[in-house]
Amino acid sequence: MRLMYLGDVVGRSGRDAVVREVPRLRKDLKLDFVAVCGENAAHGFGLTAAIAQDFYDAGVDVVTLGNHAWDQREMLAYIDRDPRIVRPANYPDGTPGRGATLYSLPDGRKVLVVQVMGRLFMDPLDCPFASAQAILQKYPLGAAVQAVIVDIHAEATSEKMSMGHFCDGRASLVAGTHSHVPTADAQVLPGGTAYITDLGMCGDYNSVIGMKKEAAMARFVRKIPGDRLSPAEGDATVCGVVVETDRSGKAVSVQPLRIAGRLQQAEPGFPV
Amino acid sequence: MRLMYLGDVVGRSGRDAVVREVPRLRKDLKLDFVAVCGENAAHGFGLTAAIAQDFYDAGVDVVTLGNHAWDQREMLAYIDRDPRIVRPANYPDGTPGRGATLYSLPDGRKVLVVQVMGRLFMDPLDCPFASAQAILQKYPLGAAVQAVIVDIHAEATSEKMSMGHFCDGRASLVAGTHSHVPTADAQVLPGGTAYITDLGMCGDYNSVIGMKKEAAMARFVRKIPGDRLSPAEGDATVCGVVVETDRSGKAVSVQPLRIAGRLQQAEPGFPV
Amino acid sequence: MRLMYLGDVVGRSGRDAVVREVPRLRKDLKLDFVAVCGENAAHGFGLTAAIAQDFYDAGVDVVTLGNHAWDQREMLAYIDRDPRIVRPANYPDGTPGRGATLYSLPDGRKVLVVQVMGRLFMDPLDCPFASAQAILQKYPLGAAVQAVIVDIHAEATSEKMSMGHFCDGRASLVAGTHSHVPTADAQVLPGGTAYITDLGMCGDYNSVIGMKKEAAMARFVRKIPGDRLSPAEGDATVCGVVVETDRSGKAVSVQPLRIAGRLQQAEPGFPV
Amino acid sequence: MRLMYLGDVVGRSGRDAVVREVPRLRKDLKLDFVAVCGENAAHGFGLTAAIAQDFYDAGVDVVTLGNHAWDQREMLAYIDRDPRIVRPANYPDGTPGRGATLYSLPDGRKVLVVQVMGRLFMDPLDCPFASAQAILQKYPLGAAVQAVIVDIHAEATSEKMSMGHFCDGRASLVAGTHSHVPTADAQVLPGGTAYITDLGMCGDYNSVIGMKKEAAMARFVRKIPGDRLSPAEGDATVCGVVVETDRSGKAVSVQPLRIAGRLQQAEPGFPV
Ligand SMILES: [Fe+2]
Ligand SMILES: [Fe+2]
Ligand SMILES: [Fe+2]
Ligand SMILES: [Fe+2]
Ligand SMILES: [Fe+2]
Ligand SMILES: [Fe+2]
Ligand SMILES: [Fe+2]
Ligand SMILES: [Fe+2]
Repeated sequence: MRLMYLGDVVGRSGRDAVVREVPRLRKDLKLDFVAVCGENAAHGFGLTAAIAQDFYDAGVDVVTLGNHAWDQREMLAYIDRDPRIVRPANYPDGTPGRGATLYSLPDGRKVLVVQVMGRLFMDPLDCPFASAQAILQKYPLGAAVQAVIVDIHAEATSEKMSMGHFCDGRASLVAGTHSHVPTADAQVLPGGTAYITDLGMCGDYNSVIGMKKEAAMARFVRKIPGDRLSPAEGDATVCGVVVETDRSGKAVSVQPLRIAGRLQQAEPGFPV
Repeated sequence: MRLMYLGDVVGRSGRDAVVREVPRLRKDLKLDFVAVCGENAAHGFGLTAAIAQDFYDAGVDVVTLGNHAWDQREMLAYIDRDPRIVRPANYPDGTPGRGATLYSLPDGRKVLVVQVMGRLFMDPLDCPFASAQAILQKYPLGAAVQAVIVDIHAEATSEKMSMGHFCDGRASLVAGTHSHVPTADAQVLPGGTAYITDLGMCGDYNSVIGMKKEAAMARFVRKIPGDRLSPAEGDATVCGVVVETDRSGKAVSVQPLRIAGRLQQAEPGFPV
Repeated sequence: MRLMYLGDVVGRSGRDAVVREVPRLRKDLKLDFVAVCGENAAHGFGLTAAIAQDFYDAGVDVVTLGNHAWDQREMLAYIDRDPRIVRPANYPDGTPGRGATLYSLPDGRKVLVVQVMGRLFMDPLDCPFASAQAILQKYPLGAAVQAVIVDIHAEATSEKMSMGHFCDGRASLVAGTHSHVPTADAQVLPGGTAYITDLGMCGDYNSVIGMKKEAAMARFVRKIPGDRLSPAEGDATVCGVVVETDRSGKAVSVQPLRIAGRLQQAEPGFPV
Repeated sequence: MRLMYLGDVVGRSGRDAVVREVPRLRKDLKLDFVAVCGENAAHGFGLTAAIAQDFYDAGVDVVTLGNHAWDQREMLAYIDRDPRIVRPANYPDGTPGRGATLYSLPDGRKVLVVQVMGRLFMDPLDCPFASAQAILQKYPLGAAVQAVIVDIHAEATSEKMSMGHFCDGRASLVAGTHSHVPTADAQVLPGGTAYITDLGMCGDYNSVIGMKKEAAMARFVRKIPGDRLSPAEGDATVCGVVVETDRSGKAVSVQPLRIAGRLQQAEPGFPV
């Protein structure tokens, strides 16, 4: 199976690039499944139902969230009606939405997408490792499901790499999101799980993590309230990975993807 | 001028790889100047005088530190005797060592290396932007010095990208360290400064940021004291960037470098 | 019922004062039950079995811990053998020891002691409110148990006051520990639960939270490793509260207790 | 000299109590100088010029701020016009307002009021100890000024106690603010400086640090956006200390003050 997962889409520039590139990539790379992290799609803050629909129309199968899940209040009411949206599984009991979703391909194969949120340097939540453990035990890779993607939405590289090893052999891919910068450490771990510390954002990299740089910089330099943060408007780079799995659901390869915008380009090459 | 800067060297595995690769790279890539972050070189914690000497013998010109600067207590006494070692400039007044060093090439050209430490999710220090500002004003690029490297040793990608823009046009390179994971966002910013959010570590990537994964993972999963952290012992990947500058000291190009070990390889290609 | 709960005992000075005062207080104040937080009793870091025994010999019934629970490694092995020691209930499943204990008075009445740890500005754990909820539902005040003490070991006053209100009507006392400074806000909340944000330490207040002031101060002023922290050795003030409950287990009154040492003295007066 | 300093005033309830009690206290206690922390006076968030005027009319001499200094944007423009308002001295260079003010009593004696902000668990700023040092050196107690008040607006008790010792002998009073809970550790330190870890708020203590408890509690229990925080409306307790100094400017005594509202009452008694 061939899976693509794209990182945090930031604002209009990010959305435009995703909606433009996904249809082509889906075809060119013969992708079976596409997920994208949408927590910053709505002007940098959260996701709306309409934007999720734009993603689906472009060929996205599942949309994940993160700590910005509820920035758009409509998501609190909407999320329970849309099984294709996943929010962190380690939110408290009673939180709207789901922390994992099972997506069925047209041929009946199933892809499990799980999101957990890290805790180091982030808002305290229940343990992401215990959360992931409970879900992974319920859906053994290669048996109940043909592919498993675990998104670790987190700040600290140590927590993200720990999650990679924690799931190694039980997931097809463990991918970090949230830092908005792609890492260059994509690898298949010893147990067969593809891993990358962060997918990077789909956004304008002439910015501060996707936001206009002047206002964002001012927050570090001065300590008085300044202009509101808003998404940078230059051309976005679409960032993510493409993973090839074998029949066991484990990864055969993981390749970075960086298309358009300012970053050094990378497009996976596959034998036709 | 051609500058190479390598990220945090972790333990013996990282040191072995750096000492093995730097002489060859220095020659093959016709490098004018080489720096390396040594804060984790001594079994993961700090730097010793002997290890610094090993780096110099291999062709390193300047060694930077970070929040682990004083893990080896000998460094407190030693650092004032070695002008090639740089620690964060925004440490309090009276801290041993220097926050910037001026290195003279054999032909008389000068390279300024500055290190500042971020504050977001880190131990509180004085403002890294004000620190950088004071130093950069003193050494105008292209006038007093022919190249300027600013190391932003920090956790948060937002603070690192802000430092990149803050120095844009005034440094040849702004490079992040500390996260131990290479980022894939190397670019020349609009003002002519090469930038990368993190150089990544020189260490074994089958690990948790360079440390053996079992003990490191246990710290996240269980909350009782466990085994001490110690460096992973597999083959290291040497990670960093190579920057080409023009006569003004600004960057013409920045290329990622990932050599040996588990990560996808990248070696800059230059016309001979 | 008359309950006394004393805050974090710090080092020898704190232990000496507790062991000296508790027998007298137990008699003078006609106390039915005495608990003490012992997480800093062993030279400032953790608790040993021998020190716990000294507390029991002096008339202490239950000893609580906190984030320093495992500073003395022997506690990891010992705690399961001593039902009178309570550690935070929201540690991960599988952590040695217990997060709540049921203590039987000679006349058969039962006192439940629960400890939960806050998360704001502290190491991430599972939700202390969910933990407290599960335990309180199992032991209804006035039915299964005649008194309930909830210790919220936490940094932030907002989290501690929230826990007070969360348990209001379901506990006899919600008392904060960990800050090592007694607060002057003891009150009976509207639902009948006695509350204080922090009991304060049993230690020398000519110090930095019980530790010698020079070394502790240096950590804030300089950013290089300095002397190890060790407990201040002046006379300790014994700090805590005494709560009087009625037959329903709710609080009739809560009175601060500050005996010996440098602080303004307070000893509850009860009708004989 | 007799000085009173009151803690963070929260919302209307806190303001009403301060404006009601200060005139009487000023007379009854024969106070020479009155300061109050006003950072939460405007509906819990910041201070306005009109509210500052209300405080002055009631007999307040100086108003301090804190991390909420700029919650009311008008303060950014106003503060430079009002020398009686003090904001943290360790804000970056160029921040509007002043970090210390010199207040002249009718008889010519001078009171210096300094505010510094802690960094542990707070937004990063420059070193509060270095800031305090620079100011205290400029205004020696008993020489240039007859009384010195240092406000350490901070979260961590360790940082606050360290500031107390750091200034011991150089200030008449070091008082903590920000936690909104009064501490019961008022004492004169060995060098002659009165000290208290936190003055507590002037606000309704049937609340979460002055805010309505339901919305504040929900933020800890659930992790979805809830109601906005707004000040609790019950009767406020006016909290602070009264310090008596001798001719050298050092403290002879420090007495807690808790008037009205829910908390145990304390009003300093002085010989007439
Ligand atoms: Fe995020
Ligand atoms: Fe994001
Ligand atoms: Fe570091
Ligand atoms: Fe490092
Ligand atoms: Fe503690
Ligand atoms: Fe403690
Ligand atoms: Fe504050
Ligand atoms: Fe406040």
